[in-house]
Amino acid sequence: MQRRIREYGIRIGRFPTGPCNKISDVPGVRVGHATLRDAQHQTGVTVILPAMDNLFRRKMVASAFVLNGFGKSQGLVQIGELGTLETPIALTNTLNVGKVWDALAEYMARRCREDGVEMHSLNPVVGECNDASFNRICDRPVTMEHVLSAIETATEDFEEGAVGAGTGTICFGLKGGIGSASRVIEIAGTAYTLGILVQSNHGRMQNLLIGGRPVGEEIENKLKAPSQTCDQGSIMMIVGTDLPLSSRQLGRILRRCAAGLARSGSYYGHGSGDVVIGFSTANRIPMDGMHQVRTLKMISENTLELAFEACAEATEEAVLNSMVCAEGAVTLSGKQIHSLKEFL
Amino acid sequence: MQRRIREYGIRIGRFPTGPCNKISDVPGVRVGHATLRDAQHQTGVTVILPAMDNLFRRKMVASAFVLNGFGKSQGLVQIGELGTLETPIALTNTLNVGKVWDALAEYMARRCREDGVEMHSLNPVVGECNDASFNRICDRPVTMEHVLSAIETATEDFEEGAVGAGTGTICFGLKGGIGSASRVIEIAGTAYTLGILVQSNHGRMQNLLIGGRPVGEEIENKLKAPSQTCDQGSIMMIVGTDLPLSSRQLGRILRRCAAGLARSGSYYGHGSGDVVIGFSTANRIPMDGMHQVRTLKMISENTLELAFEACAEATEEAVLNSMVCAEGAVTLSGKQIHSLKEFL
Amino acid sequence: MQRRIREYGIRIGRFPTGPCNKISDVPGVRVGHATLRDAQHQTGVTVILPAMDNLFRRKMVASAFVLNGFGKSQGLVQIGELGTLETPIALTNTLNVGKVWDALAEYMARRCREDGVEMHSLNPVVGECNDASFNRICDRPVTMEHVLSAIETATEDFEEGAVGAGTGTICFGLKGGIGSASRVIEIAGTAYTLGILVQSNHGRMQNLLIGGRPVGEEIENKLKAPSQTCDQGSIMMIVGTDLPLSSRQLGRILRRCAAGLARSGSYYGHGSGDVVIGFSTANRIPMDGMHQVRTLKMISENTLELAFEACAEATEEAVLNSMVCAEGAVTLSGKQIHSLKEFL
Amino acid sequence: MQRRIREYGIRIGRFPTGPCNKISDVPGVRVGHATLRDAQHQTGVTVILPAMDNLFRRKMVASAFVLNGFGKSQGLVQIGELGTLETPIALTNTLNVGKVWDALAEYMARRCREDGVEMHSLNPVVGECNDASFNRICDRPVTMEHVLSAIETATEDFEEGAVGAGTGTICFGLKGGIGSASRVIEIAGTAYTLGILVQSNHGRMQNLLIGGRPVGEEIENKLKAPSQTCDQGSIMMIVGTDLPLSSRQLGRILRRCAAGLARSGSYYGHGSGDVVIGFSTANRIPMDGMHQVRTLKMISENTLELAFEACAEATEEAVLNSMVCAEGAVTLSGKQIHSLKEFL
Repeated sequence: MQRRIREYGIRIGRFPTGPCNKISDVPGVRVGHATLRDAQHQTGVTVILPAMDNLFRRKMVASAFVLNGFGKSQGLVQIGELGTLETPIALTNTLNVGKVWDALAEYMARRCREDGVEMHSLNPVVGECNDASFNRICDRPVTMEHVLSAIETATEDFEEGAVGAGTGTICFGLKGGIGSASRVIEIAGTAYTLGILVQSNHGRMQNLLIGGRPVGEEIENKLKAPSQTCDQGSIMMIVGTDLPLSSRQLGRILRRCAAGLARSGSYYGHGSGDVVIGFSTANRIPMDGMHQVRTLKMISENTLELAFEACAEATEEAVLNSMVCAEGAVTLSGKQIHSLKEFL
Repeated sequence: MQRRIREYGIRIGRFPTGPCNKISDVPGVRVGHATLRDAQHQTGVTVILPAMDNLFRRKMVASAFVLNGFGKSQGLVQIGELGTLETPIALTNTLNVGKVWDALAEYMARRCREDGVEMHSLNPVVGECNDASFNRICDRPVTMEHVLSAIETATEDFEEGAVGAGTGTICFGLKGGIGSASRVIEIAGTAYTLGILVQSNHGRMQNLLIGGRPVGEEIENKLKAPSQTCDQGSIMMIVGTDLPLSSRQLGRILRRCAAGLARSGSYYGHGSGDVVIGFSTANRIPMDGMHQVRTLKMISENTLELAFEACAEATEEAVLNSMVCAEGAVTLSGKQIHSLKEFL
Repeated sequence: MQRRIREYGIRIGRFPTGPCNKISDVPGVRVGHATLRDAQHQTGVTVILPAMDNLFRRKMVASAFVLNGFGKSQGLVQIGELGTLETPIALTNTLNVGKVWDALAEYMARRCREDGVEMHSLNPVVGECNDASFNRICDRPVTMEHVLSAIETATEDFEEGAVGAGTGTICFGLKGGIGSASRVIEIAGTAYTLGILVQSNHGRMQNLLIGGRPVGEEIENKLKAPSQTCDQGSIMMIVGTDLPLSSRQLGRILRRCAAGLARSGSYYGHGSGDVVIGFSTANRIPMDGMHQVRTLKMISENTLELAFEACAEATEEAVLNSMVCAEGAVTLSGKQIHSLKEFL
Repeated sequence: MQRRIREYGIRIGRFPTGPCNKISDVPGVRVGHATLRDAQHQTGVTVILPAMDNLFRRKMVASAFVLNGFGKSQGLVQIGELGTLETPIALTNTLNVGKVWDALAEYMARRCREDGVEMHSLNPVVGECNDASFNRICDRPVTMEHVLSAIETATEDFEEGAVGAGTGTICFGLKGGIGSASRVIEIAGTAYTLGILVQSNHGRMQNLLIGGRPVGEEIENKLKAPSQTCDQGSIMMIVGTDLPLSSRQLGRILRRCAAGLARSGSYYGHGSGDVVIGFSTANRIPMDGMHQVRTLKMISENTLELAFEACAEATEEAVLNSMVCAEGAVTLSGKQIHSLKEFL
C-alpha cells in the first residue's frame, strides 16, 4: 500500500480533507490509468472522469489557467470561450497528445451513439508532460486501447505515483507521477469539496521545499548530485469541485494553484508547461435548448476566499503525494532516479 | 431637431429598434452630457448611467473587450476580474481621464454617504478619445463640475452628435461625436433590448462605407481632399442590455462590435484605441453577503446568436448617427471639418 | 482553370497584390492539399509550409488570434507563450484534428532524424472547420498518408475552392473551401508581402456581402431558400508575411482579419470558431543557443498601419476566392449547395 | 538607519544582489516618495523613474501581469497593446488614482514642453493599494504637489518601509510598506540586474512565512490575536531590469513574482489586487520614425530561466524588506499594528 505524505507526519494547510484526500472526494469523479512499461517505454495515460453520465449531453462548467504555456495541452481554446467541458480529461506524454485526442473522440462518438445523441463536433481535452527520459517519445506508444482501458477501469480509489501518465515523469530531480489531494470547505452550513490531481514533472532538486523546509538541498548534498541547470518538464493540474461557480469564478480559483506550486519549490521554469484545467459539477449545461433563459448557481464572490486558500494547499499536498507514492526508477540512459520516500 | 441616419432612408440590419433607437431604450439607462466650448477648447464629458439606484451597493454584470489597446480607458482590469460594474461610465478626452476618474470617485463617495453605504474602494470606469484637433488637450479643461452636471442632467432623451465627449471628435475625416442605436430581440416570447452608444473619433475618409456604399471615396473626390495617411483617433463603444447574461456571455457579445465597426469602414487603425464596455441590467450583484449561494439568470448559449447580429448592426448604425447628427466645425488650426449630413 | 473573384471584375481594396495573389507570394511559402471523396466523405487536409527547411531547428516568429474560440485548433497555447512556430500548419475537419496532429508529429520526427536534430517535444499546429454536411465526420477518415502526401506535393501554385480541407465546407450557404490572396506594401523602399489563406465554412446566406453589395439577399430571393437561423461552421485564417515583426506586432495584424471577415458579411456567429494563426518569415529563431543575446528585426509601430489595412482587404478577398473557386456539390443528405460563381 | 531582512541573518535565494539590493541597482532607475501624515491621513505616493531622460520621447519596453485584477491600476491596457512605457510609474492609495494620474499628465506635459516634444496623448501608469485603515481615503489627500515632489526628490538611495505609498499599508496583519531587492545574473560574461519594488498591503497574519518558517502563526500565538478572516488589501510589484528583452519575454518574467509572493505566504486573496508592472531599460523605442525597420535586442528564450528564478526570490525578499523596515503604527480606529521587526 502506498504511504502518502501525511503518513510521514507532514500536514499541509489548515482545511480538512475529504474522506480519501483525493479528487474523487468530489461526488461523481473517478480516475483511471493505463500504464505502459517495456524496454523502451515507461509511459501511459490517466483519465479524469468528472461524471459517469454523458458529458457531451450535459456539459460541465469549466475553466483553464495557463501559468506557463510552453506545452501542448488541447481543448483550452473552447473552454475559454464557452466555459464548459464536454469530455473526460486525459493526461499523457507530450507526443502522444494527438492519438489520445483521437481516442477521446472515438470514445465519445461511441458513447453518444449508445445514448442516441447526435455528435458532429467535440472538444476533447488532453494535457501532457514530457517523459522522454523514460520513454522513447517519438514512438507515441499510447494507443486508443490504453485510453479506453483507463476510462473503463476508472475508480474513486485510484493509485498515485509512477502510474498512468505519471509512469515516466521526474519531479524536482526525483521520481514524479500522479498525486492528488482534497479539501472541504463549508458555506452556509453546507460542506463542499475541492479536489486536485497533478501529473508532476517539474522543478529542480535544489529547490524542493516540504512545508517550507529546503529538503531538496538536503537531498542534493546527500546524493552529491550536480545541480540541474534548468527546470524542464511541466506540471498538469486538474481541479474538480462541487462548489457552485461560474466559469469566471472557477478561473479565479485555478490561479491559486500557482501559490501551492511555488510553496513546493517551483518558480514555473521556462521549459515547464504549467497548466490548470478545472470543472465544477454543480451546474450542468444541457447541450440543446434554443432560446431559453436558465439559472446558474454561484457563490458570492468574497466566499471564493475559502476556495482560494483550499486550492493552494491542496496543490502543494498533491505534488508531494505524487512524489512520495512513486518508486524510484532507472531512465533509458541508465540514470537512477530516486524516490522522495527514500529521504523522509 | 437632429435628423438621424434612418431619416435619410438608410436602414442598417434586420432587427427592429427600440422606441427611441438609443441605448436608453434599455430600461433604467440614462445619458448626460456636459459640453465645453471656448476659444481653445471644444470638448466635454458624457456619462452613461446604467441605473438610477446606487451601483456600488448593487453592482451590475459587466464585461469589456479591447479591440485595439492604444488607449487610456480605465477600470477594465477589475471588470475583467470580477465581471461587475459599480459606477456610471464616463467618456471624455484623452488627457482628462484622471480628473474625470476623480470626479466619479467624488460622486460615488457622496452618493454612498447619502445612502449610508460604507465605501473604501471604488472602480470608476472612464473611456476617452483624443480630440486634440479641437481642444488644447494638455489643459485638461473638463472639471468635476462638468462631470457632476452631466450626471444630474442625464436623461433618456439625450442629444447626439457634437456634444459632451463628442464635441471635438473627428470620424472618417468628417465631424464625429456621440451616436446611439438599439435593437430588440425576442427570446421565448419576451422582448429584450440591446443598446449602444459610441464616441466616434476613428477612420480615414476614403474608407467610410454606408450600407456598403463607398461614400467616403465619393466625398473625398467631391472635396478634392488629400487622403489621410493613417487612422488616428479612437472609438469608445458602450453596450447596455437587459438580456440576462453572465459576464463571459456579455463579453462574447461585445466582440461583435468589431463587425459593425468594420462595416462602416474601419480596419481598427494603429492609433485608434477601440474599446467596448458593456453591462447587463438583468442581474444585480449585492455588495455584501458573505458565504452565500446565489443564482444568476443567463440565456442558453446558442441564443447569443441573436444578440451577436443585433450588436453588430446597432454598432454600425450608432457610428452613422454620431456623424450625421454632428454639425461641421472648424479646428484650432482653422481647418473646416464637414458634417456627413452635407453629403447625404 | 479556376476563375478568381478579380476575374469577375470585383476588386477589393487599394493595395497591390503579389504576382499570384496568394499566400505563396511570400517567399518560401508553399501549400499542399490531400482531398478525400467517397460516398460517405468529402473532406481532406491542407498544409501550409512556411519554409522548406526544418522549422523545428529554425523556428519562426508566430502569433494567433482567437476571434471566436468555439473551435478545436491546436498549438495556440505554446504560440501564445513563446511567439514561435515549429511545424507546418495543417487544416482539416473537426474530428480529424487528433490524427492530423499525430501525422505532423510523425513528419517532424522523421525530418529531424534526417537532419540529425534531437526532437523530444513538438508543438504541431492544426486548425479545423466542421464539414459534417459532406463528411461522416465521426469516421475521422483523414489519415497520416493524406497529411504526408499534402506536404510532399506542396507548391506555390496551389488550387483553391473545394479541395483539401475545403472539400466539404459551406460558406454563406454556398460552397466554401480554400481561398487565398496577398498584398504588397512598401516600407522605406523595400516591398514586403502579406498573404492569407482561409478555410471558409461560416456565415448565413442572407448576410453575404460582395464589395458592400448584399449579394446574399439577392441569391436567397432567387433561390427562394428559407433563411438559415444561425451561423454555424467556422473560418480558419492563416496569415504569412515577410515583414520583420515581433510576435506582439504580428498579433496586432492578425486582429484585422476580423475587419475583412465582417466586410464579407460575417458577424462571427456563435457556432463559428473564428481563428487566425500567423507567421513572419523575416526572423528565424534557432532552437538552441543557451545564454545568448540576439537581435530581432521589427518595423516601427506606426508602420503597422499599412499591414493592418492590407490584412483586412486580403482577408475579404480570400473569402470570396474560396467561394468562387468552389464547384457546387450535393450534401450527404442530398441537398444541393450552389457555387457563388453561378450567381456572378 | 533601517535594518533590512538580510541584517537579521535571513537570506532569500541563491543569486547575488546588486550593490544596494534595490531596484535602483538597475542603472538609471530612481525612486522618490512623498509622505502625508496628519490626524486623518497616513498615506502618500511613490514614483519609480525608469530613466532620467524623457520617456515619452524614448519609450521603454514594458509589460504587465495581472495576478488578481481586483484593483484600479491604470495604464495596463496600452502597455498590453504596445509593449511600451512612456511615463514614470506612480503608486498611491486606491481613491487617489485619478489625481495622481492627472499629476503625471501635468508633469509629462511640462517636461515635453521643455524638451520641445509635441505631446497630445499620454499613458500615465498608476498603481494602488488600499490604506483605508490609516487614511480617510474618500478625501483623496494626495495632490499634484506630492507627486511632483516625489519625482523631484527621486534618488537611487531611497527609503523603505512606511513611507510614500507604503505609509498606510498593512501586510500579513503587520505594518507593510515599500520594499525593494535586486539580483544580478550573468549572461555570456555580462552582468545584468533585475530589481523589484513592492507596495505591500496583502496577506493574513497566520500565513506569513519567512524562508519557509511559519512566522505568522508564531506571532499570532504571541499576540493572542484573533485570525483575520480574509486577505484584503493588495500588492503592487514594479520590476525593472537592464536585460535586453521583448515585451513578451518580460511578461514571462513578471509572472514569476507570483512564486515569490506565495513563498512569503500569500495565496493571492480575493480582495487583493495583485499586479506586476515591468520595464526593460535595454531597448529604447523612439516616439517617431514612420516606415522604418529597427532591431530589438533580446536574450535567447531559455536564458529567461535565470531571470525567472531571480525574479521570484527578489520578490520574496522585497516583501520582507517592506515589512521589516516599517515602524509599527496605530490605525484611525486606534488599533496597534506591529512591525515585523518586533518579532525577529
